[in-house]
Amino acid sequence: MKLPVSTEWLLHCATSLAQLKPGDTASAAQLAQYYDLPAAYLAKQLQALVRAGVLSATTGPRGGFRLARPASEITLLQIVEAVDGTSSPYECREIRQQGRGALSPDECRNPCILAEKMAEAHEAWRLSLAATSLAEIIAALPPSAPPRTRRRLTGAP
Amino acid sequence: MKLPVSTEWLLHCATSLAQLKPGDTASAAQLAQYYDLPAAYLAKQLQALVRAGVLSATTGPRGGFRLARPASEITLLQIVEAVDGTSSPYECREIRQQGRGALSPDECRNPCILAEKMAEAHEAWRLSLAATSLAEIIAALPPSAPPRTRRRLTGAP
Repeated sequence: MKLPVSTEWLLHCATSLAQLKPGDTASAAQLAQYYDLPAAYLAKQLQALVRAGVLSATTGPRGGFRLARPASEITLLQIVEAVDGTSSPYECREIRQQGRGALSPDECRNPCILAEKMAEAHEAWRLSLAATSLAEIIAALPPSAPPRTRRRLTGAP
Repeated sequence: MKLPVSTEWLLHCATSLAQLKPGDTASAAQLAQYYDLPAAYLAKQLQALVRAGVLSATTGPRGGFRLARPASEITLLQIVEAVDGTSSPYECREIRQQGRGALSPDECRNPCILAEKMAEAHEAWRLSLAATSLAEIIAALPPSAPPRTRRRLTGAP
């Protein structure tokens, strides 16, 4: 199982936007240059974060992207699921109901114990990512990081 | 991110083999009929479980597959990783070191905090799957399940 390559892009872009001063924005082109990424594809992926309520996009000469909520209210899970969706990597096709060993529909009213255990593991993964906010990521960076990010990303001090 | 469809196959096949009497085996053809699965592809996947030390394969007229270890010593994680490998779904390509915002190699001696958090989530998923053994799965089945599985899978009582 693989997450899309753009998962790394959007985690980093959101982390960079979280270091801007309130009200400041960065464009898709600026973010693409900052990380040397393909601008058109990145722009499309940033829209996924807008749809997920993580970023907001403003238009106009000073337009661009910024966080839609405080960094303390944006979790890594929200970003990852905006990119890749919310479904579990395990797909249960109910093979217990087919073939010579088929169980009757009556015996399958409860979910398969194997599917339940796979769902529990996915939930453990989700809880782990939901436990970290962008604010905690920023707090772990060296103090010199935010001013440099602002300077190199948007030219702002 | 998606696990292979065969993940469900192998979790169920291992669960069925765990219900056989000690020393009994089932062939790939028997398992394929039991779950109505493509026999050749299933046989190939069962070999992955042999390589992982979950199953052992015996040849000869009464040959087939059986658990290589007691069911209490085989976890769901071992089966899932035999199918899909052990790598994390998140790939860190170190984009922090490229583009206008590039950090110097010196600043990147420690792993990226985002990669660390993604690795923690993968470890939470692995721990969840490692916490359940096949013996616990069997214990959750109704008492009528093992005799029926043996009868329908191998014809044994």
